[in-house]
Amino acid sequence: MGELRVRSVLVTGANRGIGLGFVQHLLALPNPPEWVFATCRDPKGQRAQKLASKHPNLVIVPLEVTDPTSIRAAAASVGERLKGSGLNLLINNAGIARANTIDNETLKDMSEVYTTNTIAPLLLGQAFLPLLKKAAQENPGSGLSCSKAAIINISSTAGSIQDLYLWQYGQALSYRCSKAALNMLTRCQSMGYREHGIFCVALHPGWVKTDMGGTLEDKSRVTVDESVGGMLKVLSNLSEKDSGAFLNWEGKVMAW
Amino acid sequence: MGELRVRSVLVTGANRGIGLGFVQHLLALPNPPEWVFATCRDPKGQRAQKLASKHPNLVIVPLEVTDPTSIRAAAASVGERLKGSGLNLLINNAGIARANTIDNETLKDMSEVYTTNTIAPLLLGQAFLPLLKKAAQENPGSGLSCSKAAIINISSTAGSIQDLYLWQYGQALSYRCSKAALNMLTRCQSMGYREHGIFCVALHPGWVKTDMGGTLEDKSRVTVDESVGGMLKVLSNLSEKDSGAFLNWEGKVMAW
Ligand SMILES: NC(=O)c1ccc[n+]([C@@H]2O[C@H](COP(=O)([O-])OP(=O)(O)OC[C@H]3O[C@@H](n4cnc5c(N)ncnc54)[C@H](OP(=O)(O)O)[C@@H]3O)[C@@H](O)[C@H]2O)c1
Ligand SMILES: NC(=O)c1ccc[n+]([C@@H]2O[C@H](COP(=O)([O-])OP(=O)(O)OC[C@H]3O[C@@H](n4cnc5c(N)ncnc54)[C@H](OP(=O)(O)O)[C@@H]3O)[C@@H](O)[C@H]2O)c1
Repeated sequence: MGELRVRSVLVTGANRGIGLGFVQHLLALPNPPEWVFATCRDPKGQRAQKLASKHPNLVIVPLEVTDPTSIRAAAASVGERLKGSGLNLLINNAGIARANTIDNETLKDMSEVYTTNTIAPLLLGQAFLPLLKKAAQENPGSGLSCSKAAIINISSTAGSIQDLYLWQYGQALSYRCSKAALNMLTRCQSMGYREHGIFCVALHPGWVKTDMGGTLEDKSRVTVDESVGGMLKVLSNLSEKDSGAFLNWEGKVMAW
Repeated sequence: MGELRVRSVLVTGANRGIGLGFVQHLLALPNPPEWVFATCRDPKGQRAQKLASKHPNLVIVPLEVTDPTSIRAAAASVGERLKGSGLNLLINNAGIARANTIDNETLKDMSEVYTTNTIAPLLLGQAFLPLLKKAAQENPGSGLSCSKAAIINISSTAGSIQDLYLWQYGQALSYRCSKAALNMLTRCQSMGYREHGIFCVALHPGWVKTDMGGTLEDKSRVTVDESVGGMLKVLSNLSEKDSGAFLNWEGKVMAW
């Protein structure tokens, strides 16, 4: 079991929760990336900003993931920084949830949650495709993997149609539908981008102690450190056959 | 194997394709419903209108499924017609597809297809819930079934995350994501509405010869008559244990 070794990573929604955890863990690796792009919708005065003052390999990039113009600007600025080399890892982590029930779910919330959780990862894949392709071309011999070029979509077992995970805890239809659709997107990306040498996977981070995860005490809940540590270990071990899979932070295959 | 017997049915997107086929088959049953509500977004000069002149039990209802105001108006007018009795069957059939690829899929198309194919069936379930509950209360003893009260969501195996059905024929990410999400919605509706006595199922109609189905000649394609005849037979045979399932027009369980 190797450690994840990549030259460049981008993480969306990186100023708190799991996104910030990814950035911290990546910077603390024995062989950290040359470039960690932490994107935040409000890049000023954020927690990631403090880290950047200590880590010259950390770049804060402004990004509102639901805005195509902001996405294009982020891709352009990342491309400039990389000076001709590719981006190994795009981690689509930014996400939102609304605590609605089946009775009070609305068109507006269904739309907004889908735009953030499902459409944004599609648009980010499209915008960063040239940089991901470039990274894949830098390692032409090897099979698909996360150290070559990959899209990591942070999904949820709340998106498992089979399981209806934690239904009693929250119905959140807009969230469940968006994550089921994100799993479909991941499968489509794995099919569509395979020829470009790009690996794709959907990960369930566990039920994590973040703002989104809520305040309920439950023994199945994990810390950001446990979740992110687990996911990075899982990612380092994945190979071509796993592209398009839906796994949890411990590497277990989840039901669609 | 009984024939489907219901007092009242509503079909969305009923002026062509599979929706019109449902209306025609329902009217031709040996024991046809007392009320068939055929909803059309343009209720004038449509094919369903011609049928209505011959069938006093057919009511054409204007309905743009993406418009909450239109949905509320439709529910109110159906309620008035039913004069205090319930609605047995809500068939969410209206749907759209866009022939985009992973490279040219857009935010706009992702949104529009999701609104029509996924959000509308949620909103229709909410708006018709009182009438569906009423129908369930009219048969308090029996288990969940389509002759009591049910929501039928017309999905697609293009929404099967496992199968990526006909990927070579069309990538159509917006459509695939919307139908995977519709399958999730169906599972959530089956959980949420069970206590009200309402059965819910997602059906794949086959690859059907309609405008949406396209013009490709392929031996696996079926006619509207074959598809609708098959689905009505399947529906008549479903019982409580099948609520929340994803089945095709021949009754076969589909992978999520
Ligand atoms: N926590 C859990 O138990 C759990 C379980 C399963 C899956 N997940 C998934 O894990 C991911 C991270 O969740 P989390 O628990 O870390 O949530 P969180 O603490 O609420 O953080 C969400 C992050 O996403 C960002 N974000 C939201 N909408 C955005 C937008 N439109 N543009 C840019 N950034 C945006 C937020 O930015 P701001 O700070 O500017 O709001 C924040 O950085 C999500 O995809 C979530 O669905 C979490
Ligand atoms: N054909 C296939 O092979 C196939 C396979 C799998 C699943 N399906 C599903 O089966 C269902 C019916 O498809 P079809 O083949 O019959 O398609 P179709 O021939 O294109 O007919 C679609 C119907 O939906 C209506 N509709 C679309 N958007 C609407 C809106 N916003 N408000 C109200 N009505 C709207 C259309 O009304 P207008 O006439 O006003 O446009 C039309 O009546 C869809 O859900 C589709 O996804 C079809």
